[in-house]
Amino acid sequence: MERLKTKVYEANMELPFRGLVTYTWGNVSGFDRESGYMVIKPSGVKYEDLDPENLVVMDLKGNVVEGRLKPSSDTATHLELYRAFPEIGGIVHTHSVWATSWAQACRELPLYGTTQADYFYESVGCTRQLTDEEIAGDYEKNTGLVIVETLLARKIPPLHNPAVLVAGHGPFVWGSNAEEAVHNAVVLEETAKMALLTEQLSQSAKPLKAAIRDRHFYRKHGTNAYYGQ
Amino acid sequence: MERLKTKVYEANMELPFRGLVTYTWGNVSGFDRESGYMVIKPSGVKYEDLDPENLVVMDLKGNVVEGRLKPSSDTATHLELYRAFPEIGGIVHTHSVWATSWAQACRELPLYGTTQADYFYESVGCTRQLTDEEIAGDYEKNTGLVIVETLLARKIPPLHNPAVLVAGHGPFVWGSNAEEAVHNAVVLEETAKMALLTEQLSQSAKPLKAAIRDRHFYRKHGTNAYYGQ
Amino acid sequence: MERLKTKVYEANMELPFRGLVTYTWGNVSGFDRESGYMVIKPSGVKYEDLDPENLVVMDLKGNVVEGRLKPSSDTATHLELYRAFPEIGGIVHTHSVWATSWAQACRELPLYGTTQADYFYESVGCTRQLTDEEIAGDYEKNTGLVIVETLLARKIPPLHNPAVLVAGHGPFVWGSNAEEAVHNAVVLEETAKMALLTEQLSQSAKPLKAAIRDRHFYRKHGTNAYYGQ
Amino acid sequence: MERLKTKVYEANMELPFRGLVTYTWGNVSGFDRESGYMVIKPSGVKYEDLDPENLVVMDLKGNVVEGRLKPSSDTATHLELYRAFPEIGGIVHTHSVWATSWAQACRELPLYGTTQADYFYESVGCTRQLTDEEIAGDYEKNTGLVIVETLLARKIPPLHNPAVLVAGHGPFVWGSNAEEAVHNAVVLEETAKMALLTEQLSQSAKPLKAAIRDRHFYRKHGTNAYYGQ
Repeated sequence: MERLKTKVYEANMELPFRGLVTYTWGNVSGFDRESGYMVIKPSGVKYEDLDPENLVVMDLKGNVVEGRLKPSSDTATHLELYRAFPEIGGIVHTHSVWATSWAQACRELPLYGTTQADYFYESVGCTRQLTDEEIAGDYEKNTGLVIVETLLARKIPPLHNPAVLVAGHGPFVWGSNAEEAVHNAVVLEETAKMALLTEQLSQSAKPLKAAIRDRHFYRKHGTNAYYGQ
Repeated sequence: MERLKTKVYEANMELPFRGLVTYTWGNVSGFDRESGYMVIKPSGVKYEDLDPENLVVMDLKGNVVEGRLKPSSDTATHLELYRAFPEIGGIVHTHSVWATSWAQACRELPLYGTTQADYFYESVGCTRQLTDEEIAGDYEKNTGLVIVETLLARKIPPLHNPAVLVAGHGPFVWGSNAEEAVHNAVVLEETAKMALLTEQLSQSAKPLKAAIRDRHFYRKHGTNAYYGQ
Repeated sequence: MERLKTKVYEANMELPFRGLVTYTWGNVSGFDRESGYMVIKPSGVKYEDLDPENLVVMDLKGNVVEGRLKPSSDTATHLELYRAFPEIGGIVHTHSVWATSWAQACRELPLYGTTQADYFYESVGCTRQLTDEEIAGDYEKNTGLVIVETLLARKIPPLHNPAVLVAGHGPFVWGSNAEEAVHNAVVLEETAKMALLTEQLSQSAKPLKAAIRDRHFYRKHGTNAYYGQ
Repeated sequence: MERLKTKVYEANMELPFRGLVTYTWGNVSGFDRESGYMVIKPSGVKYEDLDPENLVVMDLKGNVVEGRLKPSSDTATHLELYRAFPEIGGIVHTHSVWATSWAQACRELPLYGTTQADYFYESVGCTRQLTDEEIAGDYEKNTGLVIVETLLARKIPPLHNPAVLVAGHGPFVWGSNAEEAVHNAVVLEETAKMALLTEQLSQSAKPLKAAIRDRHFYRKHGTNAYYGQ
């Protein structure tokens, strides 16, 4: 558990370093499938005051196992994702400027280039709006459920398209662990910026052809990957 | 008074740190309701030369109580706001790029997402243009009056929508103290940027639904708030 | 002369510090009306290698008075401005991104807000294109002449509108000395960015009313100025 | 070879310093015509872990001559360029935001200003899309071939127009050595940004006149160059 706390701490600190968060507008969690415990940022704590020791350890039912602080207000969203998809080992939520702008426009992020295809096999989906009942009820849990709903509709493994934009809100991003989740959040922000610029340069911009999308995605993923050492 | 001077000094220094001001284009004041005194940045002093000791202490009639330097040229605007709204304890004025662009476009800032709803209950209003008489007369005081006019027309508590854009000029932002005012100015700048990008991504972008706006605003404000520790 | 060299050196170093130049794409000169000498950056020297001692001292006829290096390739442009306008004491040329984009669009920069009116009394003019003969001839001198032509057509004192955009090229900015010229170049870049954003937010954006323009300009300039200490 | 390794190492490190790469999304190679060897970045190695000693030395047939790591996954693209154009001594590939957005829009980059003309004699071409066969086959080699095809169609010396945008992917840039290639990649990114902004400011923006384009290009290139010392 100490090791996971250190990892999740480092992943959280990467958010301000990469320019993805202002003030406390973001959180990272990591999940240890063996113990069944999740480690998550405490709510509203400034990054400069964060410490592995003030992270909160919880089980997937939402019970606090360790820690004196309240967990992130988005905790219920994280829990839904870990419950639904066993392959997810880390989750990050931010209000990063470019990805959030797509979410506010209620648009999915088209896959316009190889930069995105190196990490995302498809466009990044955008959820439907929550109903007033879902908002008035268990809002954060329902946010998680609508992310799961968006992902399942795409019939794609979650790690092959590791993000969803929540309409009017912002991105949730994940990976096989917390570090990879943050890495994917950085990729999402860069590609969200490039996609907007691409549309400004061409009103008839088209998604990347399937052949080159496959080539790039599988150059980095799966058994035939040949990128890296 | 020394404590307020230190707080107002720190809040002023946060402006260049957060990238909200170029040169001396901004000022922060703080108000101590008990003594009835306001502390404000001196006019035209570079941030690197600022010091708690060269801040100016004034009463609400505009008399200098302490300090050898001339107060900010926008002093009369600050005074009108403190006079009109007892709940305001800190005010900041900047020419930050994105918020100022909305002011120059003479447009109110729509509430497109939860990032804004966490701090602002509505769109951020934009004042009418001052008349030639108001400009030729006590210009800075009249700027304060038109901000008050814009706020009152909205029938909303000032701390529930802590900013107004002055048409053709730039933002004035406030809070329950100087630190919170600067915090809100940072939020305004981020959301001003995201709102412009949102409109570029969708010509039919719509303001956030009331239900989710309420949820986010009251998650952080009021007696039922549950964000933070 | 040593004092002017130090001042011009510091003004040159401010360009990379303020993000106005990439590599060696900019130069600052200063003019000492008493001695009749101009000090200017040497051509193609990296800012990190710049030193007050490798600046070039010249008279207004273009003779090198002191210095072992070749002066900036834009020297002849600077000289024309000093010759035409005795009140100019410092000149800066950059390819700063936002101002240069207006120059490439062959558009004058509208005066949309008080940020600009604090320094510029009018829109910033854009030159006509040089003719092929002017380009093939003494190109840099002719660039200076077309800047002078653009300014004279406006019938405004050069220090009341201290910049011109050269069509297809970039901004030339000046002031009563080198430091002020760089200050104005920073203002121009900020306002060039805000003006583009303003137009994106409103297709019917209008220049600032004359009354408020006057108020802001004369708040900082002339005998009735009341900004600063 | 040690000297080339140091040079290529330094050129690689310049990429994150200049903000052209996120994570490992870029690579620089240098070619030594005398020995016939190319030095290139290893695949997927973080810039903070890079070292002259872990660069890979290869011949133009693609044999590894020295080095324990796998070379960049884009190696075959680099090799095609060195084979086709003897004057190229350094190549850089990045996913820099603005240039990549033009590539994703499948548009060539127009030559709108002197900033670009100082380095590029023409618009920067964009390749056709690769066919599915070319993608399924030796993809990286075919990427090199389509760059060569794009360049040859322009009938211009490669060092007079040292970049091509690969459609849907990003820029490849070169120079007479690795350092110059990175320098040109920085220029390309700045001019890609300014060109987009220029089009936003004027729907009728026109490329620079030939006369001034020639003047600027030859001010810095060829036997009559007079820029610099």
